Amino acid sequence: MTRILFAAPERTQAAYRDLLPDALRAVGVTATILPGAVEHDPAEIDWIIYAPSSEMSDFSGYTRLKGVLCLWAGVEGIEGNRTLAAPLTRMVEPGLTHGMVEWVTGHVLRHHLGIDAHLAATAWEPVAPPLARDRPVAILGLGELGGACATALAALGFPVTGWSRSPKSLPGVRSLTGRDGLRTALTKAEIVVLLTPLTAETEGLMDARALGWMRDGAILLNPGRGALIDDAALLDALPRLGHATLDTFRVEPLPPDHPYWHHPKVTVTPHIASTTRPAGAARVVAENIRRGEAGLPLLHVVDRSAAFARPAPGRRMQ
Amino acid sequence: MTRILFAAPERTQAAYRDLLPDALRAVGVTATILPGAVEHDPAEIDWIIYAPSSEMSDFSGYTRLKGVLCLWAGVEGIEGNRTLAAPLTRMVEPGLTHGMVEWVTGHVLRHHLGIDAHLAATAWEPVAPPLARDRPVAILGLGELGGACATALAALGFPVTGWSRSPKSLPGVRSLTGRDGLRTALTKAEIVVLLTPLTAETEGLMDARALGWMRDGAILLNPGRGALIDDAALLDALPRLGHATLDTFRVEPLPPDHPYWHHPKVTVTPHIASTTRPAGAARVVAENIRRGEAGLPLLHVVDRSAAFARPAPGRRMQ
Repeated sequence: MTRILFAAPERTQAAYRDLLPDALRAVGVTATILPGAVEHDPAEIDWIIYAPSSEMSDFSGYTRLKGVLCLWAGVEGIEGNRTLAAPLTRMVEPGLTHGMVEWVTGHVLRHHLGIDAHLAATAWEPVAPPLARDRPVAILGLGELGGACATALAALGFPVTGWSRSPKSLPGVRSLTGRDGLRTALTKAEIVVLLTPLTAETEGLMDARALGWMRDGAILLNPGRGALIDDAALLDALPRLGHATLDTFRVEPLPPDHPYWHHPKVTVTPHIASTTRPAGAARVVAENIRRGEAGLPLLHVVDRSAAFARPAPGRRMQ
Repeated sequence: MTRILFAAPERTQAAYRDLLPDALRAVGVTATILPGAVEHDPAEIDWIIYAPSSEMSDFSGYTRLKGVLCLWAGVEGIEGNRTLAAPLTRMVEPGLTHGMVEWVTGHVLRHHLGIDAHLAATAWEPVAPPLARDRPVAILGLGELGGACATALAALGFPVTGWSRSPKSLPGVRSLTGRDGLRTALTKAEIVVLLTPLTAETEGLMDARALGWMRDGAILLNPGRGALIDDAALLDALPRLGHATLDTFRVEPLPPDHPYWHHPKVTVTPHIASTTRPAGAARVVAENIRRGEAGLPLLHVVDRSAAFARPAPGRRMQ
């Protein structure tokens, strides 16, 4: 019987409660799953499924450990941990782009169709929205995520303008660059989507001036990076704009007293647009345990040599 | 100066207030637009833009009339009108299918992403929905509208099962038929979309038994025909289902005292999924006026010979 320790916050464990046993069963692995907080003998644990948001940091007693399977793509918090001798794997999951396309397409259509008003409606007012072909959308950033979203929206009929550092060629997407291009993209769009990488140049990209280029009633979607927006400038601009739907923030979780929470023109989603989905992640983790138990090499093993070469985290604080 | 009478309810006129002058200007027509209710000399009117929901029924004084341009695809209420001698055109507009795809895709993604809960959220609860590939959708009816919606949803990654009278071949869509096929489609889907034509066989298709086949928490979307649903059975089933989002009803407008209006698990949209959009219709109407003024044949002229051959409407009531 394989023994798996699930080192993750209670909320994460709840999300995997059925999915993980199902995924293990599907690949023929018989296992006992122990919650991270439960008392256990480290020497009896075969595998640790690990969320970086867990409290776990000392792996020294786990003498039988065959691997630590991280649920996140980012392993910065554990790769340099010198108490961990077993192989470490990162999450590689094709759902990250899919999730982003679904979030962006869903919220673009929500605003396009005026769904919020329908949810509150108590009377028959048959005014149809324009068609997508009459609703210009701008996507700032045409990398893997922005490009996939631009293509999906163009396929639905939206006139899509993309803005990026270098010109891009995507079917049905107009490509603009530079400061003039940004102004053109923002002044023509009724819905603006932020998916540009966060760099020194794009930090605060949506400042008072750029927000001022947006049309009256226009919609801002930010599933990219919180720091792309000057929050004070956005709050100032909102009376003139239509709505802001934000998935990323400069501080996360968004503090309970932040004005975004109760602003009638702001929708907060909790950084879920592009994230590891439990169903997909459970399959990836189960497959790796199957491989390990069958003596096959693990997938997505982290090369920790660079992390070990760096100073230990304690020293970096100096 | 061309004189156009706009015979339509106030709400319709408001929707065209800017769009119609813009569309006329775009094709180079200089015109005066008179609201239908305004006092005017019939002998001075060149064109009538006509909504069947208007009060207008006597066209006998309009001696200079070059055409009546109907804003609807259906002209049953006017084609047999013997006071109208001028050409009659119907609305032909490619947006009807596009609008349906946008409504269905938008509401499928709304329920898939759990957007309603995010609109009400006041705390950070980062639980991501599954990906589309883990959210099975069933579409009942794979005609022009259902087929287009099935294709669009499959392109977004949803596993789509279609149910129709005869088997259909659509990329990425599983095709089922018959009573057993209906049961399979409904028991496997988390979101069900009704787009089957209304016939003697499909009236009340979603009765207590069919609704009973739907999963706990499943979503029902009806942008098809109101009479596909047994409303009493749906109200009985809703405590177990997730939500019903309905665009069509047995009686429209949906009566103000109907329980759907305030049911926490029902969203009403006012028959807007597939309807003539003012922007597109304004372009079609303006183009026809341009053609008429230039001596060119009108587009989409109704052949009224069959309507004249039928008994006059007054006699049909007997």
